[in-house]
Amino acid sequence: MKRWILAASVVAALPFAAASPEACSVEADLHPFMGVLESAPGDIAPPVGMTGFSHDSLDAQLARERRAALVIRPDTLRRHLRILTEDAHVAGTPGDRATAEYVRDRLAAYGWDAKIVEIPVLLNWPKSVKLELVEPTGEKLAVRETGAAWDKDAHDAGVFDAFHGYGASGDVTAQVVYANYGDVDDFAKLAAMGISVRGRIALVRYGKNFRGLKVRNAERAGAAGVLIYSDPADDGFAQADEYPRGAGRPADALQRGSVQFLSEGPGDPTTPGWASGQSNGKLARLPMSDVRGIPRIPSLPVSWGEARKILATLEGPQAPKGWQGALPFTYHAGPGAAKVHLAVEQDYAIRPIWNVIATMTGREHPEQKVLLGNHRDAWTYGAVDPNSGTICMLELARSLGTLAKTTGWKPRRSIVLCSWDGEEYGLLGSTEWAEANAADLRANAVAYVNVDAAVSGKDLRAGGSHALRDLVLEVARDVRDPSQNRALWNTMMDRAWSEGRAEWSRQNRLRRNRGEQVKPFEWQLPSLGSGSDYTVFVDHLGVPCLDFAFSGLQGAYHSMYDDFEYVDRVLDPTYALHSAMTELWSRVAMRLADAEIVPLRYTNTAEFAYEEMLAIEERADDAGAGRPDSLRFNATLALARQAAARLRNAAFSLEKRCDAVLAGKELWPAAGPEGINRALMSAERGFVGTGLPGREWFRHELYAPGLNTGYAPVPLPRLGQAVLDRDPRAYARGVAPITDALGRAAGTLEGVQ
Amino acid sequence: MKRWILAASVVAALPFAAASPEACSVEADLHPFMGVLESAPGDIAPPVGMTGFSHDSLDAQLARERRAALVIRPDTLRRHLRILTEDAHVAGTPGDRATAEYVRDRLAAYGWDAKIVEIPVLLNWPKSVKLELVEPTGEKLAVRETGAAWDKDAHDAGVFDAFHGYGASGDVTAQVVYANYGDVDDFAKLAAMGISVRGRIALVRYGKNFRGLKVRNAERAGAAGVLIYSDPADDGFAQADEYPRGAGRPADALQRGSVQFLSEGPGDPTTPGWASGQSNGKLARLPMSDVRGIPRIPSLPVSWGEARKILATLEGPQAPKGWQGALPFTYHAGPGAAKVHLAVEQDYAIRPIWNVIATMTGREHPEQKVLLGNHRDAWTYGAVDPNSGTICMLELARSLGTLAKTTGWKPRRSIVLCSWDGEEYGLLGSTEWAEANAADLRANAVAYVNVDAAVSGKDLRAGGSHALRDLVLEVARDVRDPSQNRALWNTMMDRAWSEGRAEWSRQNRLRRNRGEQVKPFEWQLPSLGSGSDYTVFVDHLGVPCLDFAFSGLQGAYHSMYDDFEYVDRVLDPTYALHSAMTELWSRVAMRLADAEIVPLRYTNTAEFAYEEMLAIEERADDAGAGRPDSLRFNATLALARQAAARLRNAAFSLEKRCDAVLAGKELWPAAGPEGINRALMSAERGFVGTGLPGREWFRHELYAPGLNTGYAPVPLPRLGQAVLDRDPRAYARGVAPITDALGRAAGTLEGVQ
Repeated sequence: MKRWILAASVVAALPFAAASPEACSVEADLHPFMGVLESAPGDIAPPVGMTGFSHDSLDAQLARERRAALVIRPDTLRRHLRILTEDAHVAGTPGDRATAEYVRDRLAAYGWDAKIVEIPVLLNWPKSVKLELVEPTGEKLAVRETGAAWDKDAHDAGVFDAFHGYGASGDVTAQVVYANYGDVDDFAKLAAMGISVRGRIALVRYGKNFRGLKVRNAERAGAAGVLIYSDPADDGFAQADEYPRGAGRPADALQRGSVQFLSEGPGDPTTPGWASGQSNGKLARLPMSDVRGIPRIPSLPVSWGEARKILATLEGPQAPKGWQGALPFTYHAGPGAAKVHLAVEQDYAIRPIWNVIATMTGREHPEQKVLLGNHRDAWTYGAVDPNSGTICMLELARSLGTLAKTTGWKPRRSIVLCSWDGEEYGLLGSTEWAEANAADLRANAVAYVNVDAAVSGKDLRAGGSHALRDLVLEVARDVRDPSQNRALWNTMMDRAWSEGRAEWSRQNRLRRNRGEQVKPFEWQLPSLGSGSDYTVFVDHLGVPCLDFAFSGLQGAYHSMYDDFEYVDRVLDPTYALHSAMTELWSRVAMRLADAEIVPLRYTNTAEFAYEEMLAIEERADDAGAGRPDSLRFNATLALARQAAARLRNAAFSLEKRCDAVLAGKELWPAAGPEGINRALMSAERGFVGTGLPGREWFRHELYAPGLNTGYAPVPLPRLGQAVLDRDPRAYARGVAPITDALGRAAGTLEGVQ
Repeated sequence: MKRWILAASVVAALPFAAASPEACSVEADLHPFMGVLESAPGDIAPPVGMTGFSHDSLDAQLARERRAALVIRPDTLRRHLRILTEDAHVAGTPGDRATAEYVRDRLAAYGWDAKIVEIPVLLNWPKSVKLELVEPTGEKLAVRETGAAWDKDAHDAGVFDAFHGYGASGDVTAQVVYANYGDVDDFAKLAAMGISVRGRIALVRYGKNFRGLKVRNAERAGAAGVLIYSDPADDGFAQADEYPRGAGRPADALQRGSVQFLSEGPGDPTTPGWASGQSNGKLARLPMSDVRGIPRIPSLPVSWGEARKILATLEGPQAPKGWQGALPFTYHAGPGAAKVHLAVEQDYAIRPIWNVIATMTGREHPEQKVLLGNHRDAWTYGAVDPNSGTICMLELARSLGTLAKTTGWKPRRSIVLCSWDGEEYGLLGSTEWAEANAADLRANAVAYVNVDAAVSGKDLRAGGSHALRDLVLEVARDVRDPSQNRALWNTMMDRAWSEGRAEWSRQNRLRRNRGEQVKPFEWQLPSLGSGSDYTVFVDHLGVPCLDFAFSGLQGAYHSMYDDFEYVDRVLDPTYALHSAMTELWSRVAMRLADAEIVPLRYTNTAEFAYEEMLAIEERADDAGAGRPDSLRFNATLALARQAAARLRNAAFSLEKRCDAVLAGKELWPAAGPEGINRALMSAERGFVGTGLPGREWFRHELYAPGLNTGYAPVPLPRLGQAVLDRDPRAYARGVAPITDALGRAAGTLEGVQ
């Protein structure tokens, strides 16, 4: 409440305050189901101004954004969703092709230069799937959902049975061992308990790490097959009432999905590191026998309703602390009475997928590209994942198209919409397309803004490259949170405060101990890991990225229940969240495309890198404490920290200079705005090095998914991963490349001042 | 493994190495059910020597201890247990009287001067208990266990139905609200969610805090009644297989117990602060209408099998994060369809209880007392709680009695065995007896060593006053861990390392940041809170205390399943754990009674206080961070820290001097060993002040149970509680009393040097 007054008094003096009067009325601070969120203190004020715009152009920009936002309509969003989710549309299927044509036609109708880009890739579809409990009693286990009587879609035979993208064929009958999340540590713990997985079926639960790594880890431990089930502890009744009462996963819902070893490299596994259609110098495509990064043992997803029939019969020692799920019995590690027959026949082939690429050409810098991406392919109907994002993209296209048509506006730079295909198998459409267009993207991409599942709940989650942090805050300030009747900025800040206050206090105490100044509380932009189409841009090409979602518990995730009714009846009946996402995405795109100076601020990146190094040093210190010298992390990060400080200084002085010029107080330096924009775009490319150890496709020195997480990021990956792996030598070797990368970016920014 | 070699080489040179050759062979480092425990590094060596004994007397002392240990027999322990648990023996019942007579007779037979001390106290027994679900369907809910077919005891009608000691009578029919653990914060969260408990029945789960405080908090929130159930998340199938497959609580098992507001003061609530039989100057006993510290609203314990029938029908918002238990549905806060009729009629009266007090008189200082205590009363059969401890006491008595009889040995100081009654209602026997003998105990008590439930698992847990820390380590070095085939010291150290390594590393990093020296890893003695008979000694009188247990998941806790079969078939069929506890307890007693200088080392206390102040300052800093100035903790603890440093110096120089004298290298200072012993006994009394705010009975300035935990300690309670209560003024007021207390103890030790 106090914040309201302060914010209003600060904001009222600014031209864009009028753009979001609703940002200033606070009604409910209660977060549904989570108890009380603590409000951030009143002296944390929203950002002022708009990075990269001259003061003279602010009003016009905000008016344009508002005008575009007024075009957004719930009924259009809803109609798009009904059409896109009419049939299942797994990558490469006729249903998928139909959505590509629909999207292309809509984008063209909205005035965009839209075309379908066909790419041949390796895909598997299930030919036959069998799962049965052989002992203690013979019983077939379900390999698809039972559906809901009131939902026409959730009965459709067009949905594939349970299967895994890039899963192996195989036929195995074996005892079962329970291996928790199937993490590297979980298999290590089983081994320490004296329980062998060799020749057995590993039963693991979804959650924590990317599913492909569960299969990889089981394979490495010698398992003959893998069943991955959804424990109600993770996305079922222990988290929320089961759908349709709530968003929790029903007992029969299977989580389909890819089992590619994602953290080792995405994209078509037959063209690793090069684009489909090009070659590695010798071959256009690896033969199946040479393919790496996908499993050799069969695996299947299982519902908890079926998995409990296996789990409940396991004997052996009680499962270790933390392995217990939410089923109402004590979990054991196994093996036990259960013997399972798992038989999967996969139909592998090179099949076409269809990206849709649509451009609105820039008026001043048509070659410079602001890319917006969302995938279109789905495991079933994909109402949430990914078409809640697809409909936002379509509505964004209509909104900007209408703006262009009615006002003659053209963005300063080109805006490129990318409707990716084959994301679910392994980010195929984005990876292959970006590899094919790497040179152009390296030279001309300003940023890539991803929206995968746009709405699976009410909480705005943003992640991305730190250079884009200020842009996120400024846009969040100007968009209304539909479930809180105030600016998204307020909700984000309250959540950040509630989640981050203790750590901020701890960090300040450490700063005081070190004799440094304390820092005010700040919203932190989480780094990106992997699991969606930003991966090739952020990790391989060094293009600054953002990823947005209104997220929540996704109990229908990758099941037949992810259909129109789920979104239309439960998640967002008014399409207010979809509307807000469309507006947020549009404003981000319009600012990136129209700013005089591209809104990339590397002070944020440098500070992130600096703070992350301190955090890594703490973790390294903990990891080595009390251990033999060969396991201690004695390498100093001093040089890397100096490089981060140099980058900070370079960025800070450039940002101050640009701000002064845009405020009309100074003149451009010799490089001029064009030179500065080039430098700002290149700086992120400077973070790209020669590739991470063992996975050279990942080249960014600041960002990467964890080698054993898949989804979750391990920032400063050489150092962070070395600590996780307890590898002081890799740690020591990691300092120089990171120092160099920070130095390259700093040099680029110093060069234009 | 490396530790084994090091430890052996250190220990081999010492006279007492021969006492425990088995201490040096390590077989299994695996902890059952818990995955892998990390072994402590080899450079952490066991302590050397025996505090308080001259080098000349070490051999004889160890030989005596070993001789006493050889007397201990599993079959005697088992026979005692069978007899003591034949009938239920709630305080004041004929069954209870029978156990008092048995214990007295045994102790007398073993050569001790044993007598029954009868004390009249307020007790309630249940007259009639009814619990039914009135809506949505009418159904009676069980108020006792169903028992097990193969166990004669678990069917006995002699066990009371579900009831709470010091529970109120009442008859209420009302809707139900779920309030998690019934903590202060839980009720605050319900209020913030807009859910009123007023006039309703609060359904809360056992765990986290003392059950009486759950009822107190519900009463304060306006509830008309309270049901406390055992969620399988806390001691049921989510923790371990249900009994008899494992130690987890069966679906029908009720946790009986007292609902006194324990953290506000134990003992007979009609004689608060004075002994039964004495008076407060006006009254010998408060009338019931003036009694405080026990509930006014009715409450009952419920099994989860019955509670789920209520919980599953609750509506309202989903329960907040952390409130979900292990039952297989989503928990809601309520209210819902459930309406419950709860009717309890209590039979309150002043009834006799029977302590048994037995003495072996000291040869040099008969007035000085080493007290060993265990309670005898139980809610049902009490095979674990408390009679697993009672049989150890009996066997200890036989062992020391045999030693005295066969060798003519008499301890230097008197050993007093205390078989307490009425512990379950509120530590009645110990509190009333110690209040009656306060002057003698203040003058002459060396230490009090408590064993309540001696064996509920395999993990030795020790807690106590820090002056006794070194004694614990030295004895643990000399007693074999029956489940690990090595010294208890090794197991304790591995567990401490596994649980404490990260925090130790963090603390050392902070020390480096502050420019201080890092500290080697050390085993920490946990402070005592409350919940057993040490309370009056540690908190009210300032007698150094220890509390020991082999602990584990107590799924039968306070249920009908806590009977002979449970211990005899499942927990300790060989009675090896009971034997080890008997030996441990005996050795502690013999060292306290025979040491030339009582083994109280206040350097440990001073260091604990110093470190705890740093930890409290961190918590205070966190609690105030980003909050208005009125909620910041600005008071400095500098003076208190100085007092702790002064105590440390005084203790350290005295300990060095005593060690040198005992090694034959120096002469006694003027005060002589008698003066030093007096000072060491008085020093702990110096920590006793005028009483804590709002609960003056608790007088120790370093130790107290948390006001809202009951069981768990909140050390330096004025400061620690103030931070928990977010009360900077109480915090500021707390500095002086703690400073004074540390100063008094320091002065006492300085006075004899």
